[in-house]
Amino acid sequence: MQSVDSYRDEIIGAITPLAATEIPLTDADGTVLASDVTAVWPLPGFDNSAMDGYAVMAADVATASEGNPVRLPVTAEVAAGDTTGRALASGRSIKIMTGALLPADADAVVPVEWTDGGSDTVTITQTAEKGHAVRRTGDDVQPGDLLLPAGTRLGPAQIGVLAAAGHGAILAYRRPRAAVISTGNELSEPGSPLVPGLIWDSNSYMLAAAARQAGCDVIRHAVVRDDPAAVLAAIELAAATADLLITSGGVSMGGEHDAVKAALRILGTVTFRKVAMQPGMPQGFGLLGSPPRTPIFTLPGNPVSALVSFHVFVEPAVRALQNLSAERIAPAKSRLTAPVSSPAGRRSFLRGVFDPQGRTVAPLTGQGSHQIASMARANALIVVPEDATELPAGADVDVMDLP
Amino acid sequence: MQSVDSYRDEIIGAITPLAATEIPLTDADGTVLASDVTAVWPLPGFDNSAMDGYAVMAADVATASEGNPVRLPVTAEVAAGDTTGRALASGRSIKIMTGALLPADADAVVPVEWTDGGSDTVTITQTAEKGHAVRRTGDDVQPGDLLLPAGTRLGPAQIGVLAAAGHGAILAYRRPRAAVISTGNELSEPGSPLVPGLIWDSNSYMLAAAARQAGCDVIRHAVVRDDPAAVLAAIELAAATADLLITSGGVSMGGEHDAVKAALRILGTVTFRKVAMQPGMPQGFGLLGSPPRTPIFTLPGNPVSALVSFHVFVEPAVRALQNLSAERIAPAKSRLTAPVSSPAGRRSFLRGVFDPQGRTVAPLTGQGSHQIASMARANALIVVPEDATELPAGADVDVMDLP
Repeated sequence: MQSVDSYRDEIIGAITPLAATEIPLTDADGTVLASDVTAVWPLPGFDNSAMDGYAVMAADVATASEGNPVRLPVTAEVAAGDTTGRALASGRSIKIMTGALLPADADAVVPVEWTDGGSDTVTITQTAEKGHAVRRTGDDVQPGDLLLPAGTRLGPAQIGVLAAAGHGAILAYRRPRAAVISTGNELSEPGSPLVPGLIWDSNSYMLAAAARQAGCDVIRHAVVRDDPAAVLAAIELAAATADLLITSGGVSMGGEHDAVKAALRILGTVTFRKVAMQPGMPQGFGLLGSPPRTPIFTLPGNPVSALVSFHVFVEPAVRALQNLSAERIAPAKSRLTAPVSSPAGRRSFLRGVFDPQGRTVAPLTGQGSHQIASMARANALIVVPEDATELPAGADVDVMDLP
Repeated sequence: MQSVDSYRDEIIGAITPLAATEIPLTDADGTVLASDVTAVWPLPGFDNSAMDGYAVMAADVATASEGNPVRLPVTAEVAAGDTTGRALASGRSIKIMTGALLPADADAVVPVEWTDGGSDTVTITQTAEKGHAVRRTGDDVQPGDLLLPAGTRLGPAQIGVLAAAGHGAILAYRRPRAAVISTGNELSEPGSPLVPGLIWDSNSYMLAAAARQAGCDVIRHAVVRDDPAAVLAAIELAAATADLLITSGGVSMGGEHDAVKAALRILGTVTFRKVAMQPGMPQGFGLLGSPPRTPIFTLPGNPVSALVSFHVFVEPAVRALQNLSAERIAPAKSRLTAPVSSPAGRRSFLRGVFDPQGRTVAPLTGQGSHQIASMARANALIVVPEDATELPAGADVDVMDLP
């Protein structure tokens, strides 16, 4: 059996990141910058007012107070979006709105709250120092400043700064397009009636949701029968448009009924192996296409095995497709609230409830690989190393957050 | 000025959760269960094999060993998905695949690895105890068991268990549909050239991404000019299909140029106030529609103010629309690495870099409400309480994760 780490390293090593493409900002959510983004223009791009009020020369209002107000003529008014170049004369004022272009020679803005709000003449009852309520050109960003480094995954704030700096599109690795395919004669659609021998398909729904959560755009394909030709056709169809394929089922150890194995043996670029883990031992991975660069994961059919395998192998591969390092985050250390057991020589991933405040993790009951009820209550996987068969309550363990 | 907590409580108190609707499992991602889901059928739904192998009566293989193998005739073969009811006779075996219906009277499965894999007769070299590799009906879930309680937000594992239990649709609160509208004569589309006085619109891109991240389906509207009639038309159009409206800009303290304020004064159901926070003081909130139940947030135009306001006020409202409690998670306690200051009587939300390992948080430079560059580098907001004006390095503070 191959170790978990060696298998994961093999997968990551085989993956070629997607080609970086020009992506419009409207579709940039969750994409990853392929190059540093530096500022071309300063931010703010021009001196402007931080408040609604009156642009003045600070010297003209130096003596203003409640008891001794200063009165200035108002010679113009400038709103946000007004691009007219105006100049302020000494002893005068210009009414100005938040964000509006500061008139030349003005060096302070008196907030409207410190005035009578006058239109022809304004009465000012409080002094404003030089620079008051003025945002100077470039006081946030200077041309040439690094805005965001390559390898940044774009969320709201990052998209905000790119837009503010005028970038309508960026060079980035797109969200990978994942195709999810369930196989098996035993599968029926949830909601339809069943007879003994058949089960409802859960993997395609679950893995589609997991792939979306991992940052993919997802196409969920209809269930495919256990027929190698049908499976092969579905895989080739999906591979034509997907960056990543995920199948489940059809890869157990028995042999002749394993349609996914049979189909992929025809293609010849996917290998199957036993990985020293529980759940999730039977795994298959390979590359499709010409040249072969579209990864395909053939996950086991048991739902718990499939979801654990997704988190351990597929999620790092999604990151690698976007040219990110494979590790999302180092597993957190936590303390077991109850003893657990694990087969010798295999790494176990047990479903647990992690309490981030107390840093404890409680293993759930129902750890069979077909027992999905406990999976739905878990927020973490407890990692039991290969050399441990029993861990007592109180033992320190690694936990992987389930996002 | 109204306190942050009082304003947030007012918002949450005003929100009516969306109507619960029947949602197909294909669209259930991120929805919230409106009622408990209990199991109608057992899981597994029938006794089945956990491995590829041979269904036997355990008594017939009790003496099997390498040196003294047991040979049994193979009378049939049953694959996953085969619904034929079969019975096993004493002294015989039936070849069986993982997940296949266990024949009546069989009580153990001998894994293929413990046999010669024979087709007419199988040679078994290891004894299998009663129940070996057999999954019994209902050993995961019994009819009537609670699968998921009302109020569960559905992710991959929850969707998996619903599908496995046969639920093709669920009664749930959908992902809220959020409409995002930027207003301002000064706004140009990123990527277009600018002259002084104009800026690139960043808020609509940023807030659309934030709303998606908070679990909404989002429509981002084109920028609206500072004209009350145009703003009102845009708001009414958006409100016809949205569950939640978010505008930014047009609500500063000055008055006559504030198109959003002017437009909403016509509607009469939105109120504007100053909230004792920094950034984000000018806020507006109300309900649209007849009866009025569609919340509208008029966020300030400064990008940092807008994004902080989103996290503090809009995100809890999104949760309330899905009938979830307002708090996502209690803020974590952390230790400041450098001193910070804050205006008296206001709660400050400073951009910082939180280190979850060391539980420290480093305030970033550039905390002006128009300075978005530091926002893009932050992973947390540092909360400075109203009664603090200075906090030294080493002080304990609350931090809010930026998702």
